Amino acid sequence: MKPFLNKDFLLSTPTARHLYHDIAAELPIIDYHCHISPQEIAQDKHFTDISEVWLGGDHYKWRLMRACGLPERLITGDAPGREKFKAFAALMPQLIGNPMLHWSHLELQRVFGITEPLSGQNADAIYDQCNEQLAGLSAREIMKLFRVKAICTTDDPVDSLIWHESIADEPENGFDTQVRPAFRPDKAVQIEKPGFAAYIRQLEEVTGRSLTTADQIATALEERVNYFAARGCLCADHGLDTLLFAEPDIDVANEAVEVALSGGILTAAQVAAYQTLMLLVCARAYKRKGWVMQLHFGCLRNPNTEGYYVLGPDAGFDAMSSRTGAENLAALLNEMVSWQALGKLIVYSLNPGDNAAIDSVLGSFQGDAQGGLQHGSAWWFNDHIDGMSAQLRSLASVGVLGRFVGMLTDSRSFLSYTRHEYFRRLLCDLIGNWVESGQYPGDEAWLKALVQGICYQNTNEYFGFGL
Amino acid sequence: MKPFLNKDFLLSTPTARHLYHDIAAELPIIDYHCHISPQEIAQDKHFTDISEVWLGGDHYKWRLMRACGLPERLITGDAPGREKFKAFAALMPQLIGNPMLHWSHLELQRVFGITEPLSGQNADAIYDQCNEQLAGLSAREIMKLFRVKAICTTDDPVDSLIWHESIADEPENGFDTQVRPAFRPDKAVQIEKPGFAAYIRQLEEVTGRSLTTADQIATALEERVNYFAARGCLCADHGLDTLLFAEPDIDVANEAVEVALSGGILTAAQVAAYQTLMLLVCARAYKRKGWVMQLHFGCLRNPNTEGYYVLGPDAGFDAMSSRTGAENLAALLNEMVSWQALGKLIVYSLNPGDNAAIDSVLGSFQGDAQGGLQHGSAWWFNDHIDGMSAQLRSLASVGVLGRFVGMLTDSRSFLSYTRHEYFRRLLCDLIGNWVESGQYPGDEAWLKALVQGICYQNTNEYFGFGL
Amino acid sequence: MKPFLNKDFLLSTPTARHLYHDIAAELPIIDYHCHISPQEIAQDKHFTDISEVWLGGDHYKWRLMRACGLPERLITGDAPGREKFKAFAALMPQLIGNPMLHWSHLELQRVFGITEPLSGQNADAIYDQCNEQLAGLSAREIMKLFRVKAICTTDDPVDSLIWHESIADEPENGFDTQVRPAFRPDKAVQIEKPGFAAYIRQLEEVTGRSLTTADQIATALEERVNYFAARGCLCADHGLDTLLFAEPDIDVANEAVEVALSGGILTAAQVAAYQTLMLLVCARAYKRKGWVMQLHFGCLRNPNTEGYYVLGPDAGFDAMSSRTGAENLAALLNEMVSWQALGKLIVYSLNPGDNAAIDSVLGSFQGDAQGGLQHGSAWWFNDHIDGMSAQLRSLASVGVLGRFVGMLTDSRSFLSYTRHEYFRRLLCDLIGNWVESGQYPGDEAWLKALVQGICYQNTNEYFGFGL
Repeated sequence: MKPFLNKDFLLSTPTARHLYHDIAAELPIIDYHCHISPQEIAQDKHFTDISEVWLGGDHYKWRLMRACGLPERLITGDAPGREKFKAFAALMPQLIGNPMLHWSHLELQRVFGITEPLSGQNADAIYDQCNEQLAGLSAREIMKLFRVKAICTTDDPVDSLIWHESIADEPENGFDTQVRPAFRPDKAVQIEKPGFAAYIRQLEEVTGRSLTTADQIATALEERVNYFAARGCLCADHGLDTLLFAEPDIDVANEAVEVALSGGILTAAQVAAYQTLMLLVCARAYKRKGWVMQLHFGCLRNPNTEGYYVLGPDAGFDAMSSRTGAENLAALLNEMVSWQALGKLIVYSLNPGDNAAIDSVLGSFQGDAQGGLQHGSAWWFNDHIDGMSAQLRSLASVGVLGRFVGMLTDSRSFLSYTRHEYFRRLLCDLIGNWVESGQYPGDEAWLKALVQGICYQNTNEYFGFGL
Repeated sequence: MKPFLNKDFLLSTPTARHLYHDIAAELPIIDYHCHISPQEIAQDKHFTDISEVWLGGDHYKWRLMRACGLPERLITGDAPGREKFKAFAALMPQLIGNPMLHWSHLELQRVFGITEPLSGQNADAIYDQCNEQLAGLSAREIMKLFRVKAICTTDDPVDSLIWHESIADEPENGFDTQVRPAFRPDKAVQIEKPGFAAYIRQLEEVTGRSLTTADQIATALEERVNYFAARGCLCADHGLDTLLFAEPDIDVANEAVEVALSGGILTAAQVAAYQTLMLLVCARAYKRKGWVMQLHFGCLRNPNTEGYYVLGPDAGFDAMSSRTGAENLAALLNEMVSWQALGKLIVYSLNPGDNAAIDSVLGSFQGDAQGGLQHGSAWWFNDHIDGMSAQLRSLASVGVLGRFVGMLTDSRSFLSYTRHEYFRRLLCDLIGNWVESGQYPGDEAWLKALVQGICYQNTNEYFGFGL
Repeated sequence: MKPFLNKDFLLSTPTARHLYHDIAAELPIIDYHCHISPQEIAQDKHFTDISEVWLGGDHYKWRLMRACGLPERLITGDAPGREKFKAFAALMPQLIGNPMLHWSHLELQRVFGITEPLSGQNADAIYDQCNEQLAGLSAREIMKLFRVKAICTTDDPVDSLIWHESIADEPENGFDTQVRPAFRPDKAVQIEKPGFAAYIRQLEEVTGRSLTTADQIATALEERVNYFAARGCLCADHGLDTLLFAEPDIDVANEAVEVALSGGILTAAQVAAYQTLMLLVCARAYKRKGWVMQLHFGCLRNPNTEGYYVLGPDAGFDAMSSRTGAENLAALLNEMVSWQALGKLIVYSLNPGDNAAIDSVLGSFQGDAQGGLQHGSAWWFNDHIDGMSAQLRSLASVGVLGRFVGMLTDSRSFLSYTRHEYFRRLLCDLIGNWVESGQYPGDEAWLKALVQGICYQNTNEYFGFGL
């Protein structure tokens, strides 16, 4: 029996252990999609309480606490940090098979040097031990600890990016991690959401333009793409509930804007035409800049009205959609081709039932003109061993795993870089199994190129980090 | 090579063997969802022919016999029991990978002490041997043999429950198994089915009420919930083809009732409004009683018209639906919240493609007010090693496996309790693999609590059997 | 560590190795569905360049080359054969987990005796070595090398089948492989495609009939079924994008024909009625002949307009559909029953998410009158280890694996018979694992019957090859 989470965690063969320990473990991290606050990096935030870091904003943990029947007071309520930590710790034995069990212990081991399994019994002592060590750690120090060479945060087009500029302006402190913005214009695309009109007013202010038509909004976004590019941005990200597709008819899109800005009720056709048009306009702008476009779909946002009403968005009440719109992906890509807007693109669906279709559809649009379409790594509710394995195996079987740009954290926490380790271990195990069973040659040069590529180098080259 | 179905069947690691033999195997059984006849328990039915028990009502077996090209005469026809048994036995070698191969041999081993593989060659001898032993066995004796502490049968709201009362009234025979009814109002909910009007007349008779509106039907059902509760009922069950959702508009629902009772043709909107309203009304009534609600969907009933015409329902002609309605689950749960009707709930889809979405949607509605929403165990066409494993792994990855209420037989046969053994072995193997590979601590107390919980104690507490 | 692709490739247990080496490996091949040119067999084509064989028409390889960013010149363009071969060879290290890595090396080993891993480094030498050996090989010799006893090509109803006749007429050369046509009337069924009217004119010419109604087209197809049957045909094949179903109303179908022949625009209802009617008419004709009907659905054809425009169909731009129409399968089968048109049928969906539903729906229509409905082997984008394994496991769990008719190549290349070896190794490994873990008896007679059946004998009997 292998001890819990020891140095060979997830590495079940000699080849896997060699690939991980001798190649993957030493590679630095590029985290090309996360929700880290650039302000906290700029100000080099310090933490005094493990509960703040672990439970302050992590809706993954909140969901599990709710599923175990804990009262909201211990989750997002006003209970003291120690009490929340103990409540969460006490759930560990029930979390068998859940990535949270692994993530939590990887963080305890790598950041705090704590190797014993967390539980209700030792929670008090571990709480104190973590806090003691946290006092000596800052945001930047944690990033250095994990050898993070570059990250892309998630930023609204109206953002001034002052914190990114501030970080870039003071490299003197020995902090040379690239902290780049990523362009996420969801609020300008999601015309059917309540905040659209207010958001367009913000965009008007920032660009100094009057925005009353779809064309004008498109122009404003293109201007902001330039603004972001000038500040080091290399990629954009779109988060859609259902992937829609309609003919990108400018008249219908303009109608949609008129209705939405005047508080009217949009038809489904108007929403689809506007959304499609905006995706095309944005994609074309990104392609011109050489950016990577990310497309996330299949999320059911805020289905629990009461939960949303009480705690707001991103509080653990989202879900995986059974209506992802994957059937529209090919039509959208086809339209992108005719707009000369299909460049580097990473596609993610939140529903793992879409894996095979995504891999096959992307394969129908590959070509040297595109620069490589990618099936993004397992995401959110799929970010566990089986989910990551399913995505990797599907990509390998139908596409080309060797070209994959690999893992990202999608995280709001500085401690989450252990998810790269989790991914790398799993990847090395998968490759190790293929090698040991004679399905791939045990050629050191081939293996080294594969592992270095998927864990680091492919990302570096695909996005153009220049590392 | 491990011998076929020996004592370590499905237990591939030392930890798995320890967990099963030392913890799981000894636990009694609670079978909270089955189709056993309470009358047969009350009258302590005796069996004289293994074909009656095995082939008399088991449409799982009938389907396999048809798939192997046997004539209906040997399946549901008038062939003698011995001939049917031999025909079925002769198929065994072809059933590799099918749970029927395992269930059949588990039953032969546990009830009849027969350990050799059944086949056409030894069918005659085994037929005689089984019948000999069956002569000395009764329904209650079989239940004692399997240490069944409690079962919930499946009962129509109009049922008088006299057999349940009869069993409860005579505990003197040393038979202390709880035999509880479960409330299954499908006929009152499925307004689009031909028998609806006739059924409502039955409900009128039983309740002494005139039922011409949806409100009145709702009130009648609530009355029957009280009736069932007074007779020990702890749970209800809804079997839906496609899970529909519409605004539960009482006017539309009343219209639907009027149309249906007068033999008219319902619109899809009427059906959806009525079904949604009834689910909400029922759910609220259950929550008030503290009952567990079960929701089964994704079944394609009677797609083979000729088969249905000749042999009627439940004769092996149902299938898994590709239109399950899983996309409506979140909207239904959300409406339940606003009706204060979301309490203890177990959700099952017959299509395994819904597993991940169900786990994620349930996670968005958990909370201490609900008492724990559950993703039900793999069901019917998924009740095999891969199907059970997929449900368990998805639940563990996205939800909390440690809270799971585990297995049920869904069976019409007294011999099917071996399915609990099948499940427990699989569960112990899964947990054993996680422990042996360092993905979960090898902590005896943690493991014991997990296995006891999922195999017995969680069910006992969740339903309130008081055992 | 097992060497790459050695003799025990994919065989992970002693039982698997025994089953493959002692039983499966020696069995001849029946390839009941392929796209081999009968003309090339009749003329006993010789090859002089491995690039012609490997890269000349293999859109599986083209897709991978595009996914790796190669320019079209090296894929379908005018680059010399050596250059194309080297470009493809250089991708090998990236193809980890892809069946192309295995297929390519199986072909190099079995046909050319080359055992070293192909790469950019040794591509030049291997290119020469292959060409040298190819000079001494012909189409028929390759088929003999693989012990191919029978194949079914894919032929249009208007085809004269002269090449099949030519092959059948000259058995003197010691070439006794059955080369049978298969009836594929897609162009007559796909009324919504641009070429329909032109195709119907071809069918008019061949049959000497005037075809202006659905009935007349049906009669013409029935006549061609007779023509094919007289030339040894045993099966038909339908390739559908989405499986549609509508009432097969002859008036609507006739309307559809009128509209389509006059270049008008069809409604969805017209298309569905016509398609359903034609499937029923064809199925009935096949059943009368005792043929096997194959039904392929779930393909998204030519979603990339530019790719299609430049390179035409079958150039690697097709994909898996997310709208397969699997939800219509049961209704179609039900209608077939009432038309007495449901006979031997093999169903394939291109989306693996349909596996479980297909297995369960087929199980609802089995019976001795049908002759055995089959879930077809993993196809096209699923033709890899995980995809084949998923289909086999689903079939075993829900249906009866022992009855399975097994593998086909679906290939356009004479070298692809190694895919049967790939399948057989995987099958033996799956069975071996079940035996070694005690899930199936280690009974030699049972195992031999299983392996022989699935690899050869079931196909022989089901189709009636008379071998």
